[in-house]
Amino acid sequence: MEVYAGVDVGGTNIVCGLVDSSGKVMHRIKRATEAAKGPDAVLEKIAAMIEEAAVGYAEQSGTDIAVVAAGIGLPGFVDPDEGIARFAGNLGWRNLPAVQRLQARLNLPVYIDNDVRTYVYGEAMYGAGKGFKDVLGITVGTGIASAMVNNGKLYYGFRNMSGELGHIVMEGLSDPCPCGLNGCLETFASASGMVRQAKKALRSGEASILQSWFPEERLEELSAADLSRAYDQGDPYAISLMEQAGALLGRALSYAVPLVSPELVIIGGGGALAGDRLLEPLKRELYSRILPDYREQLKVVTALYNDDAGVTGSAMYAKQKHIGASV
Amino acid sequence: MEVYAGVDVGGTNIVCGLVDSSGKVMHRIKRATEAAKGPDAVLEKIAAMIEEAAVGYAEQSGTDIAVVAAGIGLPGFVDPDEGIARFAGNLGWRNLPAVQRLQARLNLPVYIDNDVRTYVYGEAMYGAGKGFKDVLGITVGTGIASAMVNNGKLYYGFRNMSGELGHIVMEGLSDPCPCGLNGCLETFASASGMVRQAKKALRSGEASILQSWFPEERLEELSAADLSRAYDQGDPYAISLMEQAGALLGRALSYAVPLVSPELVIIGGGGALAGDRLLEPLKRELYSRILPDYREQLKVVTALYNDDAGVTGSAMYAKQKHIGASV
Repeated sequence: MEVYAGVDVGGTNIVCGLVDSSGKVMHRIKRATEAAKGPDAVLEKIAAMIEEAAVGYAEQSGTDIAVVAAGIGLPGFVDPDEGIARFAGNLGWRNLPAVQRLQARLNLPVYIDNDVRTYVYGEAMYGAGKGFKDVLGITVGTGIASAMVNNGKLYYGFRNMSGELGHIVMEGLSDPCPCGLNGCLETFASASGMVRQAKKALRSGEASILQSWFPEERLEELSAADLSRAYDQGDPYAISLMEQAGALLGRALSYAVPLVSPELVIIGGGGALAGDRLLEPLKRELYSRILPDYREQLKVVTALYNDDAGVTGSAMYAKQKHIGASV
Repeated sequence: MEVYAGVDVGGTNIVCGLVDSSGKVMHRIKRATEAAKGPDAVLEKIAAMIEEAAVGYAEQSGTDIAVVAAGIGLPGFVDPDEGIARFAGNLGWRNLPAVQRLQARLNLPVYIDNDVRTYVYGEAMYGAGKGFKDVLGITVGTGIASAMVNNGKLYYGFRNMSGELGHIVMEGLSDPCPCGLNGCLETFASASGMVRQAKKALRSGEASILQSWFPEERLEELSAADLSRAYDQGDPYAISLMEQAGALLGRALSYAVPLVSPELVIIGGGGALAGDRLLEPLKRELYSRILPDYREQLKVVTALYNDDAGVTGSAMYAKQKHIGASV
């Protein structure tokens, strides 16, 4: 059986899946990235995971497995044409010839691209965006990033550097961002941003059920899921925080829609697990700020797959590239 | 000699030019649009102008002229594939089969698109953007609109509706916009918007040299060029107004750059005549709000042609379509 390997490389974990040519994930494994061990160790881990997944699935299914090609989504700025990981801050990579090294090691065609681009590609082609040709996807997680499918093809921009929606500076925000700017969207509206805002507010004595769940000594354990839990208990602070974050996302999207005219916006990443708690204020703000012509046609949904969209997207990206089709 | 006709249809004037296959405008004529006479009269005027230009240039140059195809830039939402002018508020057009009618009348291949798209296409391919493949162009005139060339091709988006950068709602602005929203970028930062802001301020007694140039009874004559004139005389109000407008444009562009990653931004339309008076505050604001990776590579310039970019763009758009190349 012919399959494509799809690999999603994050700062914390690497997920590797085998995907059939229809986009169905047949088998998947997950390992810690251990970026601190350096780029060579991470590349070797990626290669070993692809082999391990192939052997594991062959044994489990009792069928012969042939991996046709591998697609790998990498964080940061990636040059898919040259096969080079230009810059990935959370991995500490700079100008790493990832394709050349992995192809030599695996004896397989290997294709790389930015992880948000492969994730949104997976969602746009096989997930929530199936049937749509103009899709804007954003991932709300540790940070916020975006990618676009335009007329069925991935959008890149100059030096493949499109997609940093998380780093637009929003009026009313002022927290410093690790990027060097102040008030970036992701300082507040990412999953990590919301958690950081909540911790700050709780330390300042904000009244919230979260104070009893997370006394000072346990405050570091607070996660985005806890905010949703507090929201569902009717906690006014959690509700207000998520409404603000949703409204900020909606406002940022209202800047994007008139410029690029998507038919569908997909909200993915861990933050999408907040569902309507974020989506409702997001849509309210977005729809109140765009021309009726956009308002009438634009749909906003959460991602269909979460972890698997990156794997599916990377694998199907590799399939398209391998058969010589554009992505 | 084979030429392409390029027509730029505005709410006030129609400009028709004959352009050689290298993009050089050989001959041009200009007539009032007289949109109130209705779509049939305007279409007839466009056709008659193309014929008149061909005859005029043939006589003037003493050479035989063959018009190969015509490209027409129309305001509003245009469907270039179906050849239909979907909606043009300032012309009062809705779902007008412009291509079918003009082809029947002229016996020529005719291609239409949105006027800002053809204008930016002309600038990107033959003007200030020559040699650049990822260009974001904005026109600052009666309103503000945008168009993009991505990897050398025009960007459209769902239903060809990308490009309404003038209708992003800016924090700090609140004036009603004819589109139904409040605080749209173009209510302040377009050429007309600046004039409107100035009139409002002068009526409220704002101290400015403009008060002596335009007493109440002549205030309606105030134009954007007068603002530049006052600016050059060191008028603090005119300077502050243009700095605010430039900063607003810069802020709006800072929302666009991370999303789409252009290599070059071209500022065109009548507002571009303000030159550095707008461009300096625009760049200051824009560069202070984008990631270093963008800041280091992004160039911002004013358009090379003004009136002629629409003509060149429309004609070369027609040439590309006619030879079966994508635009």
